[in-house]
Amino acid sequence: MKFSIAVMPGDGIGNEVVPEGLKVLQRAIDVSGEPVELELTDYFVGAQRWHETGETLTDEELESLRKHDAIFFGACGDPSVPSGVLERGVILKMRFGLSHAVNLRPSKLFSGVTSPLANPGEIDFVVVREGTEGSYTGSGGSVRTDTPQEVATEVSVNTWYGVERAVRDAFERAQSRNKKLTYVHKHNVMVHAGHLWRRVVEKVGQEYPEVAVNYEHTDACTIYMVTDPSRYDVIVTDNLFGDILTDLAAAVTGGIGLAASGNLNVEGTAPSLFEPIHGSAPDIAGQQIADPTASILSGALMASHLGLDVVAKSIEAAVEADLAERDGTKRTTAEVGDAIAARLG
Amino acid sequence: MKFSIAVMPGDGIGNEVVPEGLKVLQRAIDVSGEPVELELTDYFVGAQRWHETGETLTDEELESLRKHDAIFFGACGDPSVPSGVLERGVILKMRFGLSHAVNLRPSKLFSGVTSPLANPGEIDFVVVREGTEGSYTGSGGSVRTDTPQEVATEVSVNTWYGVERAVRDAFERAQSRNKKLTYVHKHNVMVHAGHLWRRVVEKVGQEYPEVAVNYEHTDACTIYMVTDPSRYDVIVTDNLFGDILTDLAAAVTGGIGLAASGNLNVEGTAPSLFEPIHGSAPDIAGQQIADPTASILSGALMASHLGLDVVAKSIEAAVEADLAERDGTKRTTAEVGDAIAARLG
Ligand SMILES: CC(C)[C@H](C(=O)O)[C@@H](O)C(=O)O
Ligand SMILES: CC(C)[C@H](C(=O)O)[C@@H](O)C(=O)O
Repeated sequence: MKFSIAVMPGDGIGNEVVPEGLKVLQRAIDVSGEPVELELTDYFVGAQRWHETGETLTDEELESLRKHDAIFFGACGDPSVPSGVLERGVILKMRFGLSHAVNLRPSKLFSGVTSPLANPGEIDFVVVREGTEGSYTGSGGSVRTDTPQEVATEVSVNTWYGVERAVRDAFERAQSRNKKLTYVHKHNVMVHAGHLWRRVVEKVGQEYPEVAVNYEHTDACTIYMVTDPSRYDVIVTDNLFGDILTDLAAAVTGGIGLAASGNLNVEGTAPSLFEPIHGSAPDIAGQQIADPTASILSGALMASHLGLDVVAKSIEAAVEADLAERDGTKRTTAEVGDAIAARLG
Repeated sequence: MKFSIAVMPGDGIGNEVVPEGLKVLQRAIDVSGEPVELELTDYFVGAQRWHETGETLTDEELESLRKHDAIFFGACGDPSVPSGVLERGVILKMRFGLSHAVNLRPSKLFSGVTSPLANPGEIDFVVVREGTEGSYTGSGGSVRTDTPQEVATEVSVNTWYGVERAVRDAFERAQSRNKKLTYVHKHNVMVHAGHLWRRVVEKVGQEYPEVAVNYEHTDACTIYMVTDPSRYDVIVTDNLFGDILTDLAAAVTGGIGLAASGNLNVEGTAPSLFEPIHGSAPDIAGQQIADPTASILSGALMASHLGLDVVAKSIEAAVEADLAERDGTKRTTAEVGDAIAARLG
């Protein structure tokens, strides 16, 4: 069995963590004994390329990405590039172009990991963040720009089609987990989009009578995230709220150094993309001090997505074992990858 | 000196906490010896009125509110009323109609108060949340509503004028505090509004060379809020991000039972409004178990706004003393108010 993987380390620590993610994934495949071959194709995107060529990710590359089975991404963004250029030109271009309807972000407090919360309790939930709509479409603009009369708009675009894809995925996950779905929005203020979300959740929910559904305003959800995160099983929310809540969730479960994500094309019309939720972290890049755990766990998510469940589970187990024994000793990025790979046997 | 105050308890625990806020305020005025008289005018808004009359807050009432020196508000909202009706019809109608440019939300971890964070450190910052724009304008709508082809939009409207009002207020506060201003947005994704915010901060910042300015993405800010909240002095941000971040800030400083806010008309063209940041909490309403501290501290903010600095400081000191000695003994809402009032001498 051969899987074709597009590898896109991007900027900053993306270049340091992606090799570790791949190292551990390859090792897990090797020891699994499964006849799986990974065919890796590199894609170069990011600040350096933009400075040299003015290009972010071309339309041709986006087309070419379609032929792969999955995309393994690092991070993108650099202070030397105007804010938004790489984010919109690379990251969001793929999420939108490849129909990554669901941005899946598991949040688990692994044993041995320190939470900033005094009494974190057991934390183990997943956030299903809608990935192709909301405030991320880039719609809007400005008039009388850079004058005292400037007006700038951002249009959050929400469709029944797009919301239903994410909501259905979330119900499926809740059904196979603890049957609790929390949908999060701000429908007391953003009534147009909020009521669409509410209606979709009610409608799709009729097909999942076993799943208990509750609603929280986004602001209230941030409170529970620090006072009672154990209450969550599956959270479904829009693109912007999901962005904010998953960083907070990562923080309470021990930091964004550990948080993996999958940008899933749920219809199978294009490859899904797997990436740490952290960014390029230019302040610590090039020093081999970044924690590659999020990239390694993204590798597990990718393996699971490709149907390699044994491989995925073995990576997760190796990571859990490594986390449980971390004692504050400083290790390089590669040493962490090596240690986790070594646990695979 | 006579101040005319519009009193609007609203729904749920609003009716229990507002009387305590007023009780403590009146007591603080009495003991201050200042020749200040409060003239209170009640306004009835909320779920009951809406059920009986279909009215929220009429245009006539909004006009009549203008003649007061300040508005003392409780909370609004009830599950029996469709989401958004009271929020848009009462709360936002006042914020927009009375030009409450700045939604001021102090966040302080008082001594004796338990934070959910293991190592909270010293927390003492204020959030200047823009109050009249962004995703709160209600702009947008839906087409093909309640069909699989529905499209719903929310338009975030941002103007140089509105952003500058808030940003200028934030710089003033930073200048008189620790000279650190953090502006928070998501300008790598919401480029139109985000870049307007960036330009305004840069421009206004030229007038405050002593204030150190830094930028954080909203998602990153939620991380720091739980890992390093001491870093903040003044935060300025848009309406929606401010809503989310201030609930989180309230949570890390011991809960929304303590968090006060002022909706400030910075041009002096209409009265400002003071309210707890918590809502009507229908689940605990009518039981006299709500904590009135947020309303009492809102009274202090109102006093300070009216120029009664001695009164404001004495209320804050009484609250601090009460908080320092709370030992988990259950007290009714009125007992907490009485205890704080008694400390005023
Ligand atoms: C880099 C940025 C565009 C991105 C987002 O906002 O989605 C990041 O924060 C994330 O969460 O993956
Ligand atoms: C009740 C609601 C409209 C309001 C808001 O979103 O601003 C509340 O959450 C607040 O923060 O004052």
